Amino acid sequence: MGKPLILVSNDDGITSKGIRVLVEIMGELGDVVVVAPDSPQSGMGHAITVGNTLRLTETDIFSEVKAYKCSGTPADCVKLAKHHVLKDKKPDLVVSGINHGSNTSISVLYSGTMSAAIEGAIEDMPAVGFSLCDYSADADFSHITEHVKFIAGQVLKNGLQKGVALNVNFPPKQNESIKGIKICRQARAKWQEEFDQRYDPHGQRYFWMAGNFVNFDKGEDNDEWAIANNYVSVVPCQFDMTAHHAISILNNDWEI
Amino acid sequence: MGKPLILVSNDDGITSKGIRVLVEIMGELGDVVVVAPDSPQSGMGHAITVGNTLRLTETDIFSEVKAYKCSGTPADCVKLAKHHVLKDKKPDLVVSGINHGSNTSISVLYSGTMSAAIEGAIEDMPAVGFSLCDYSADADFSHITEHVKFIAGQVLKNGLQKGVALNVNFPPKQNESIKGIKICRQARAKWQEEFDQRYDPHGQRYFWMAGNFVNFDKGEDNDEWAIANNYVSVVPCQFDMTAHHAISILNNDWEI
Repeated sequence: MGKPLILVSNDDGITSKGIRVLVEIMGELGDVVVVAPDSPQSGMGHAITVGNTLRLTETDIFSEVKAYKCSGTPADCVKLAKHHVLKDKKPDLVVSGINHGSNTSISVLYSGTMSAAIEGAIEDMPAVGFSLCDYSADADFSHITEHVKFIAGQVLKNGLQKGVALNVNFPPKQNESIKGIKICRQARAKWQEEFDQRYDPHGQRYFWMAGNFVNFDKGEDNDEWAIANNYVSVVPCQFDMTAHHAISILNNDWEI
Repeated sequence: MGKPLILVSNDDGITSKGIRVLVEIMGELGDVVVVAPDSPQSGMGHAITVGNTLRLTETDIFSEVKAYKCSGTPADCVKLAKHHVLKDKKPDLVVSGINHGSNTSISVLYSGTMSAAIEGAIEDMPAVGFSLCDYSADADFSHITEHVKFIAGQVLKNGLQKGVALNVNFPPKQNESIKGIKICRQARAKWQEEFDQRYDPHGQRYFWMAGNFVNFDKGEDNDEWAIANNYVSVVPCQFDMTAHHAISILNNDWEI
């Protein structure tokens, strides 16, 4: 049996530190192919490029590792990897990240990192999105490399349920070591936006989106609690958006 | 009691026919404010603009109706509407569309139309995304206006459960009238992509994403079945992506 085939993508772009760290760790587990955006794609959610063209260019940025930069979104990268770059060789694992910044709670919806992983799940490939809750471009990943390797190893060994991708978040480096891994649900929290209104040199108005993260969740079984308490959070995610509990209520309310 | 306040957005852009039809119908139900993208945003998923600036400009495109065009994504539009345009006046209803094209099944993830509605649900406002399964720019909406009005009216009257937004799809105009409304779950289906490889005038390679929709779902309680059988499909959607059933399985498999 050959080494497992591991597809790596991200949303911070192919030159970010996080993907370099991830490629290195995955190299210890299998044969790596990288298809990642040629520019930062943070906040792209599950965007895909339908009304425009896509570029895909081989690059030697990871020396020995086969790598391609793509002009599209993280979801585009996984689609192009599967249907064009890898063709009939289905990856044994898709990993995305390591994101510079948190993707806990509601951020899973806005996250380009997780859209690559969810795209893996849609295509029936075990997939994991990794994020470090540290936004700095030169973030310290040294405290999480063993955890990343453990989690990827577990997924390679045990697989994942059909249609499930993992959203893994790591606390930033602290004096104390990480306490362990918690399997969590997505916390009930949201961003409370504020729009910073400014004027350009031509006197025209523009805005920057800003705001604060607000956590409404008092539970201890969610990803926000895990990160706040120096645990790794692992949320299994799926892509059925149906609010199944609401179906019978609507049938009653609407009398149909 | 005053008329309800209705926020209208979309993803095809503020000049599309679908939003014009929607603004007209909503005008019969309440006071309308429009905040919609200044250009097409199809396939934008739940993208938001975090690394760039946003423009917001008032426009008289809908004559009597207060309307703003925005340089951002559908999700940006709803955020800007809530936190800047409407400030403390919370809309009684958020509607998005009417999209030119289907947003059934897995397309809910890629859909800008639905991201505006989901954003409404995140902000605790009853929200509906409307899509017509007809991609043409001059699509005929005449067979669905009464249904759009009925559904919006029901939501205004009964509200929606906290955290729920509706994904409403309509069959294209046919000889036979629409048979009725079905409350559905999201069908198990996906896009089978193909990438059409071409070369630009400078000899550089590029791709167009193309492909076919593949339905794996044999059930009759899903949105694909409803549309195929000339019913309106209404899928209640939520934004907890957690695969709750997988939590105990992971705890067992990983022995943590």
